Amino acid sequence: MTASSQSYTMAGGNGQHSYIHNSSYQKAAIDGAEEKTTQCILEKLNLQLNSDLGTFRIADFGCSNGPNTFHAVQTIIDTVKCKQLKENNNEVSLMPLEFQVFFNDQTNNDFNTLFKTQPIECGYFSVGVPGSFHGRVFPRNIIHIGHTSYTTHWLSKVPENVCDKKSLAWNNNYIHCNHSLEEVTKAYKVQFVKDMRVFLEARAEEIVHGGLMIVLGQCLADGVTMSETWQGIVLDMIGDCLMDMAKSGVTSEEKIELLNLPVYFPQFSELKREIEQNKSFMIETMEAISHPLEDTEILTSNFIISMFRAILSTIIKEHFGEGVVTDLFDRFAKKLAKFPIDFIECEKHVNYFVLLKRK
Amino acid sequence: MTASSQSYTMAGGNGQHSYIHNSSYQKAAIDGAEEKTTQCILEKLNLQLNSDLGTFRIADFGCSNGPNTFHAVQTIIDTVKCKQLKENNNEVSLMPLEFQVFFNDQTNNDFNTLFKTQPIECGYFSVGVPGSFHGRVFPRNIIHIGHTSYTTHWLSKVPENVCDKKSLAWNNNYIHCNHSLEEVTKAYKVQFVKDMRVFLEARAEEIVHGGLMIVLGQCLADGVTMSETWQGIVLDMIGDCLMDMAKSGVTSEEKIELLNLPVYFPQFSELKREIEQNKSFMIETMEAISHPLEDTEILTSNFIISMFRAILSTIIKEHFGEGVVTDLFDRFAKKLAKFPIDFIECEKHVNYFVLLKRK
Repeated sequence: MTASSQSYTMAGGNGQHSYIHNSSYQKAAIDGAEEKTTQCILEKLNLQLNSDLGTFRIADFGCSNGPNTFHAVQTIIDTVKCKQLKENNNEVSLMPLEFQVFFNDQTNNDFNTLFKTQPIECGYFSVGVPGSFHGRVFPRNIIHIGHTSYTTHWLSKVPENVCDKKSLAWNNNYIHCNHSLEEVTKAYKVQFVKDMRVFLEARAEEIVHGGLMIVLGQCLADGVTMSETWQGIVLDMIGDCLMDMAKSGVTSEEKIELLNLPVYFPQFSELKREIEQNKSFMIETMEAISHPLEDTEILTSNFIISMFRAILSTIIKEHFGEGVVTDLFDRFAKKLAKFPIDFIECEKHVNYFVLLKRK
Repeated sequence: MTASSQSYTMAGGNGQHSYIHNSSYQKAAIDGAEEKTTQCILEKLNLQLNSDLGTFRIADFGCSNGPNTFHAVQTIIDTVKCKQLKENNNEVSLMPLEFQVFFNDQTNNDFNTLFKTQPIECGYFSVGVPGSFHGRVFPRNIIHIGHTSYTTHWLSKVPENVCDKKSLAWNNNYIHCNHSLEEVTKAYKVQFVKDMRVFLEARAEEIVHGGLMIVLGQCLADGVTMSETWQGIVLDMIGDCLMDMAKSGVTSEEKIELLNLPVYFPQFSELKREIEQNKSFMIETMEAISHPLEDTEILTSNFIISMFRAILSTIIKEHFGEGVVTDLFDRFAKKLAKFPIDFIECEKHVNYFVLLKRK
């Protein structure tokens, strides 16, 4: 029942290189947005509208694996409970709301690990929902609060022409949209616009009238290009390492030309435009928020290597085969040691917090 | 949010010994009940009562892995659609029901495989629900049709005393309740009664008023004991093989004494009594149905070996370690060859179909 989509998931399992153990950058972002999330729910949620038959439904779209998703939904639940208590003048309801939490991600996400690592006695009924959020994953009108964090820069597919040597939009041997080739940027943008529209249209169908949708993520400041940010520099460096590997015969240039990450970071105003074009939601809040780690010394080379390995290993494995991952990240580590990036001084992605209310 | 429970799942994955490829006995039972299921839904389901806001929710409790669970829910959905069409005088509704199907099983069930093997374009929104059905797994009042097949003979735990050498209910070196020791039977019965009550109470909370609960399973005919049925004989034989392995030093008698299967097949009237004691459901139908395979020559030794391997390998692995499974079933094959069971002539389990309606 879900739209087909090229599906890349974060590294599964519970081991050293898993997303579970290498997602503290993303966690920091969620922590950074926690106060904002709490405040928005307290202010904007209409409990009367939303709680049919005593069940309150929360969905995390593109949840990957814990602990971030568990943390995010717990914040939402605690806040809804707090709001309910306030509205009841601090009297505990005889029939308190029951919470059902839907953890959504691609069908090949590691749901087994998600279920095994979820907090015991979490106070909600837990459910896993396989399927791409670039399409419907729920029946109409059932979700009260939707949440997604650091997911909407993932496209449903790589823009077709960027891997086509004969196309004007050919991305050469870059592995992502670094904004250095105009036609490539255009192709990525077209795909992003399409995906963002589908994402919002699907959520508009699934979320109850008056329900909320929280979107956290990263974009670029207006006027900033990917190659000026440390994330862009890192991805270009990983691309360079792949080219080194082609030269040593571990892989080939042709194979690298066929790898393009289905990832696009829009500029802030571009993102805003796309959200505004959807007429089913009111934008209650859309603002840049600070990322607690961006200005600290935690952003070391080792931290970045582990983080990008957890994010990219599934794609790299699928494209080049299992053996390449460790080699690639070893080379990346060496390159970083030789050409260190000043993470603090680089251009930064903008972390944004968006609260939408279903009309 | 779920009750703790000793959790044993069917063999996961998609390989030679997986439940997926060794569950045709269970499938035949579901097929055998298909007509009954269809007829009952057509007659007893009140669509007006059940479809709030356009979503129709179906849950399969203890779904394990496909294809049986997919087949069972598809039958239910097709029938509900057919009923809706009839009630609309064959006019297709402008806002047709949307179906959400909840696949429930223990947290350590292989949900990854379940999701990857589910039919594409199945026509419903699919959801995995981890947790023991010996307790609540859903919020109140949300399921329209519940279904469970061949699950309720699994107890939430092994009755404590049956592994205790000092207890009157000590089960010696039998590995299941074969009815040869009265105190053991009593201990198993107590656990069964407790578990069945909890199962029905939980379902009564989760199913909407007027909703249906379909229970398929096996029990014993009144007056028949486990050791008279081929299933009972098979389990005793597997127990004997374990004892042989103890003699060869592969395992020990002490270890076998600590293994008791958390499985109890009640007699028909015993089951009926337990269902009747729950006052939240009306019993619409409770009857014995034929099992399409029981009288055919498909029940060969090889078939039985594969079937019991898929059912028991998780428990055996957990108790004795990974290496024991193949050895055990090789020995079992040899024993069966030496002492063949006449599956057709043995006492048979009763296959029952129960339809409950939530008051």
